[in-house]
Amino acid sequence: MHFGLVDIIGLLAAFGTTVSFLPQAIKTIQTKNTSGISLAMYSLFTAGTMLWLAYGIMSGSLPVTIANAITMIFASIILIYKIRYK
Amino acid sequence: MHFGLVDIIGLLAAFGTTVSFLPQAIKTIQTKNTSGISLAMYSLFTAGTMLWLAYGIMSGSLPVTIANAITMIFASIILIYKIRYK
Repeated sequence: MHFGLVDIIGLLAAFGTTVSFLPQAIKTIQTKNTSGISLAMYSLFTAGTMLWLAYGIMSGSLPVTIANAITMIFASIILIYKIRYK
Repeated sequence: MHFGLVDIIGLLAAFGTTVSFLPQAIKTIQTKNTSGISLAMYSLFTAGTMLWLAYGIMSGSLPVTIANAITMIFASIILIYKIRYK
């Protein structure tokens, strides 16, 4: 199996966009300040990560599956807070 | 070229997670309310989309390239507003 620069960039990209939702989830849980957060964004985004998760499982891609399972959890938390504390 | 259910789910997923940042960008531009938005999230996320863009170009994936070019623009706008109106 060839594992080169392109793969490393892809893994770093997946790590960055996945982990980025953690500080947002922590901030939202701590402050309950969701006034500047878009409900449309998190509704669409959470649905999108669910589809990515299905795509990852169906296409047998472990990185896509894992990255989106984690992102979906973070996005769902932010969405629930947005609905509850809008 | 076989184009089945899995591909359709993948395209819908890419569309959903890309387009979701548009309502957030519009809301942020209109309200300039960035108090609930995480600077760490948008710094990491914007950097992540840049890496995804590089990965898309280097691996020759048009969907990854296009989706992340668009998402990177939306995320950059939100990041700039967060830095300017925090």
